[in-house]
Amino acid sequence: MHNKYLVTDQWKIIENQWRPELHQGSESIFSIGNGHMGQRANFEETYTGQSLQGTYLGGVYYPDKTRVGWWKNGYPEYFAKVLNAVNWIGIRIFIDEQELDLAKVQVTDFQRELNMQEGYLSRSFTADIGDGRFIAVRATRFVSMKRKEIGAIRYSVKLKNFSASLKMVPYLDFDVINHDSNYDEKFWEPVAENVGSQKAVLQAKTKKLDFNVSAAMRYEFLVDGEHFTLYPETDKKPKYVENSFSLKAQEGKEYTLHKYAAICSSFMHPNKELIPLADELASQAMRAGFNKLLEEQKQDWAQRWSTSDIKIEGDPEAQQGIRFNIFQLTQTYTGEDARLNIGPKGFTGEKYGGSTYWDTEAYCLPFYMASAGKEVSQNLLKYRYNQLGKAIENAQKLGFTNGAALYPMVTMNGEECHNEWEITFEEIHRNGAIAYAIFNYTRYFDDPTYVQEYGLEVLIAISRFWAQRFNYSTAKKQYVMLGVTGPNEYENNVNNNWYTNYIARWCMRYTAEVVAQMQKEVPEKLESLAKRAHFEPQKELAQWAQISENVYLPSNEELGVVLQQEGYLDKEQRTADDLSMAERPINQFWSWDRILRSCFIKQADVLQGMYFFEDHFSREEIERNFDFYEPRTLHESSLSPCVHVVTAAYLDKMDKAYELYLRTSRLDLDDYNREVHEGLHITSMAGTWLSVIEGFGGMRVRDNVLHFNPKLPENWKALAFTINFREAVLKVNFSGKQYKLEKLSGPQVEVQVNGEKVAFS
Amino acid sequence: MHNKYLVTDQWKIIENQWRPELHQGSESIFSIGNGHMGQRANFEETYTGQSLQGTYLGGVYYPDKTRVGWWKNGYPEYFAKVLNAVNWIGIRIFIDEQELDLAKVQVTDFQRELNMQEGYLSRSFTADIGDGRFIAVRATRFVSMKRKEIGAIRYSVKLKNFSASLKMVPYLDFDVINHDSNYDEKFWEPVAENVGSQKAVLQAKTKKLDFNVSAAMRYEFLVDGEHFTLYPETDKKPKYVENSFSLKAQEGKEYTLHKYAAICSSFMHPNKELIPLADELASQAMRAGFNKLLEEQKQDWAQRWSTSDIKIEGDPEAQQGIRFNIFQLTQTYTGEDARLNIGPKGFTGEKYGGSTYWDTEAYCLPFYMASAGKEVSQNLLKYRYNQLGKAIENAQKLGFTNGAALYPMVTMNGEECHNEWEITFEEIHRNGAIAYAIFNYTRYFDDPTYVQEYGLEVLIAISRFWAQRFNYSTAKKQYVMLGVTGPNEYENNVNNNWYTNYIARWCMRYTAEVVAQMQKEVPEKLESLAKRAHFEPQKELAQWAQISENVYLPSNEELGVVLQQEGYLDKEQRTADDLSMAERPINQFWSWDRILRSCFIKQADVLQGMYFFEDHFSREEIERNFDFYEPRTLHESSLSPCVHVVTAAYLDKMDKAYELYLRTSRLDLDDYNREVHEGLHITSMAGTWLSVIEGFGGMRVRDNVLHFNPKLPENWKALAFTINFREAVLKVNFSGKQYKLEKLSGPQVEVQVNGEKVAFS
Repeated sequence: MHNKYLVTDQWKIIENQWRPELHQGSESIFSIGNGHMGQRANFEETYTGQSLQGTYLGGVYYPDKTRVGWWKNGYPEYFAKVLNAVNWIGIRIFIDEQELDLAKVQVTDFQRELNMQEGYLSRSFTADIGDGRFIAVRATRFVSMKRKEIGAIRYSVKLKNFSASLKMVPYLDFDVINHDSNYDEKFWEPVAENVGSQKAVLQAKTKKLDFNVSAAMRYEFLVDGEHFTLYPETDKKPKYVENSFSLKAQEGKEYTLHKYAAICSSFMHPNKELIPLADELASQAMRAGFNKLLEEQKQDWAQRWSTSDIKIEGDPEAQQGIRFNIFQLTQTYTGEDARLNIGPKGFTGEKYGGSTYWDTEAYCLPFYMASAGKEVSQNLLKYRYNQLGKAIENAQKLGFTNGAALYPMVTMNGEECHNEWEITFEEIHRNGAIAYAIFNYTRYFDDPTYVQEYGLEVLIAISRFWAQRFNYSTAKKQYVMLGVTGPNEYENNVNNNWYTNYIARWCMRYTAEVVAQMQKEVPEKLESLAKRAHFEPQKELAQWAQISENVYLPSNEELGVVLQQEGYLDKEQRTADDLSMAERPINQFWSWDRILRSCFIKQADVLQGMYFFEDHFSREEIERNFDFYEPRTLHESSLSPCVHVVTAAYLDKMDKAYELYLRTSRLDLDDYNREVHEGLHITSMAGTWLSVIEGFGGMRVRDNVLHFNPKLPENWKALAFTINFREAVLKVNFSGKQYKLEKLSGPQVEVQVNGEKVAFS
Repeated sequence: MHNKYLVTDQWKIIENQWRPELHQGSESIFSIGNGHMGQRANFEETYTGQSLQGTYLGGVYYPDKTRVGWWKNGYPEYFAKVLNAVNWIGIRIFIDEQELDLAKVQVTDFQRELNMQEGYLSRSFTADIGDGRFIAVRATRFVSMKRKEIGAIRYSVKLKNFSASLKMVPYLDFDVINHDSNYDEKFWEPVAENVGSQKAVLQAKTKKLDFNVSAAMRYEFLVDGEHFTLYPETDKKPKYVENSFSLKAQEGKEYTLHKYAAICSSFMHPNKELIPLADELASQAMRAGFNKLLEEQKQDWAQRWSTSDIKIEGDPEAQQGIRFNIFQLTQTYTGEDARLNIGPKGFTGEKYGGSTYWDTEAYCLPFYMASAGKEVSQNLLKYRYNQLGKAIENAQKLGFTNGAALYPMVTMNGEECHNEWEITFEEIHRNGAIAYAIFNYTRYFDDPTYVQEYGLEVLIAISRFWAQRFNYSTAKKQYVMLGVTGPNEYENNVNNNWYTNYIARWCMRYTAEVVAQMQKEVPEKLESLAKRAHFEPQKELAQWAQISENVYLPSNEELGVVLQQEGYLDKEQRTADDLSMAERPINQFWSWDRILRSCFIKQADVLQGMYFFEDHFSREEIERNFDFYEPRTLHESSLSPCVHVVTAAYLDKMDKAYELYLRTSRLDLDDYNREVHEGLHITSMAGTWLSVIEGFGGMRVRDNVLHFNPKLPENWKALAFTINFREAVLKVNFSGKQYKLEKLSGPQVEVQVNGEKVAFS
């Protein structure tokens, strides 16, 4: 069913044959990024075959006018889109006037490598460009982890068996398109172009919102490694600048360009500084030189791997898969800037607008907590804190009052982008995950300061939303929540989704707990926050308590399970086994009404709740619900299997856990969903991490203690990983019934393995 | 709130002052049509002010590519749009080179009249075109009821106090736009243009579907009523042909053009005949002459009014309103062609695509049965019969099998056009109305042949749909219908909508009745139909009976009402009085989720069912449900009040009945909804007719007898009307407690008034 063409390697992704039909997928897989910008693995030289050009800059987006069939009051006018920005990698190559284009020559040898350990992309190929004239090209590039606005390329051409004129044309180009533009518009307008000898700089701005971006380039030219002085021609047109130079290239010699590009945006700097700054940064990069920049890159990645690596012995594919996921997650978000977040495709494609979803809080946060530590994780939380005002406005648009907040389903700057009423207005459980993340962070780091200084304000606004969103049913004499879409998006507009009601109730109670604790410990902080949020603890807490005590949670006693929503058992009860493969995924074969009225579940819903709140339920309760819901779950969201893996492992259903794990582990590398050409599933990569660490590693924080309960798949000889836990860095190794824990740095922390306290080695 | 600017008159709509800001609304109100084509009241001469140009041809539409936010499997690619076609009315007027344009001159006198009795539009105005030079224009036009492809115009210009050169330019123009084009495309492409002296013909075709339309014109020129020979210049460009001629016009003389246009489409004729045919028809029209054509028109309308008029004494506004509604309904559908139907805006605007909705069966059929008789009504039913194949295909797309049919929500040719899952896939009660119309027709005309020859096939296919759409709930041990949208579109994706479940069950039972009757009376017909439809009576009827006997119908014993849908009482219970006017209509002020979870009802839902099946319920049951649902109903669909009027009158709640009646009676004439500029609410006009005839007249067919139970509003001195009933034409007059019935023609029929048998005078 899927594509398996990559070489298995512990630290690299390797493609060793030119397959044009898979190129656009490889462009996604071999993407590079530094948390600030990202670049798909497009070719430097012109390529007229199938390709998705993509250079994406964190925080720079476009509010594209939506296409809506039937407008609903409250819909946003615009859908914020991740913006394909300046093509900074471009180097056109001409040999005797013939432009090099892999779509038009005979490629005899091709190798593409993503070096995940050291953080760079390289590519080499040999091609017959006609009449038996062979050339060899090698290219290496990266976006610098240390210098966030710098990209560097080493690009070499060798004429293997002939001499000819060689023209090289390094350029910068803003005249790019977004494939998902709703009305085929181009989003960039020219601002300035300046081009000189061996340097150029230009600036463009977005047609709306006035994001300005400058790009500068410098380059050096080397012949067999020796610097060579050039007298290039220059050219420019709106949104475009180039240098070009020709020389008589001799058979067997290698002609190399080091291209340094700096890209600076008004998201980071004042407009008027953009051009001089880019120019200066590019110049600095050239002065440092390609090799030094690459050395910095290797060191930076070594540091990152030292607290985030996972080793899986005995399963090379799983090893490669998990490292790929860690690598891509780290490339997507590095956490210096609380205005950035994690789009479902990261910097690897246009789809889903590059915006923030509840994925961040529900799936990604644990990875960043364990791998990148407290500050980075706090920045993820602060993203929502900083957008609280917009979330309150958003709730107001839907008729909520008194500072109630509804965070958007999809957002770039805090405003809602989504325009489908059943999601935009009804998939409100996202508010719950945002509250849960505050709790999760606080539990993981045992750090009450965040919730006390920032988190509570968010919790209050969300609790206010829930209190208004429940209504009292005189028929049931309980509080009900009508018209919601739960995590299972194969149901819309249901009444009393168990997950939503449960997390809403939990949220009101947790908020009350935090308030109570602050009243005891830091009353002055509470007072100042209450003033800021017009919070009236006595009155509001009483109201929340009244609701919380009497929330309707649908369940079925006979089956001993909770019900995904009221009326779930009225559906025809079938299991995934009853479906033929020809009708799956059902969203490709069934009409929406048929999906909605079926019992089939897209992704963990009840089980998502039991995963979040494992401690609230007995093992037997969880098992009954797992046994009921797992067979009905189709896992047609890439975010689904991980939750079931963790729960299955908890329940010692290891075959099921491993079966489901395989569906996420190499989702993109093996292109299970046939959509890797659109970009990578970045946020679901965090789900794979959860599967390994919380599933097979059995990691939990419970009663303020870090627990492991390792249960390795049969073929795994060992599972080892390094994590941050609170202020400590721990190295953990599980192998069979053996385990070994090391504290690499930081204070003493209590850890238990299989319920027993561990002495660190 | 609304606009009241028209003069009240029994037989005319009169506008007696030039108000440019209301012109686009008047263009709708003064529309003319003949069931085959229609023309908004655009000006003949150039008008650069606000205007919606509209010439619409029955059956000629455009499949405009939809705009969809989030595609769902099963959505149609296209939305069929009523197509603005050739501008045939155009006559440009130049006086001393200055083009006449009411947006640019001083209008001193203006009168527009729609003569509903005789079926034509006339207009006259005086204007100062500058420097005190006054001109007077008179224009009369109509589209011929007798000659369906002919439009005729008499257009006269008089220079009142000066002489000048006068140029007149009659033209035909296909270079027109649809305002609702999704991507600002023009829909017509040129095919041919021919222009000669005093004649022209051209043809264009639609960019998709290849609808070809030809238009031809002839004209005569008269000076003070005397024919005058011309030597015009000719001009043409793609999609456009014109003649133009100038003369020295003298003060006080009247210069008149009789323009005859023929419009022929490939919907009616083979392509290659279009040009010669249009040419010949225009020529014939000219030979007949304007006065003869107008005389034909008057006779035709006299005939139509003789079986459809309603007289209301004592309420001139209601009188004008009901005649306007009858007039517009008659202009929209004349019933010769079973491929045509009744769009919500008829031929008066672009909105709602000019397509067919369930409005036809649920609201319009009774008007046409009573006013236009059996053949016309049968053609309305055959429209659906002819589209049965597409309805079966449509159901197949949604996963139904075995010849089950789901008729589209919106259609032009039988294919679904709508693209909103909660409507397209879930507002399936439309199937019920289509079945009900067959029953209604059969009851009204006491004519079993239609259902036996055509109707049953439709009934079977619809019953098959219901049988599959219900599913057995093991929880309830009853059949349930999940995920539907009822007539109240302020609920989506609900479970067990009472109306839908009820009409579905009724449909399966009625189908079984028809089958049983045919088995007895015409077994050979049944056998042949069964073969055609692969119908297995024994097996299928048994299955339907099993379901019918055990359908879940939600209700509440305590309140003694049925429930609009399962869980309706979990909503916060409020009434329309609790809403401030500032938030109404709520669909303009509330977000969709808020509307959905509120208890507020857009249009009759439970009460629609009790209206259809009045005989199934006791008066007390109906009253309890009316008293419960009426206060919760906002009537934010123009189709809603009529059903409540009929039921309120039945329940002797005459104040309520009259209050609601006022909301529909002059909806467009007084522009209650501030949207008349988009076109008229044609189908809801039939609802007004129902209010008068079934509400205040209390007309019912019960036990094969025609009943009246008149209850006139206080200020109505008398209500009189003429109707077809079966083969008879009856004239009915109610006045106070008096009544008078006349049989104008046809066989004896039994009629009861207030339960007593009537002797005809």
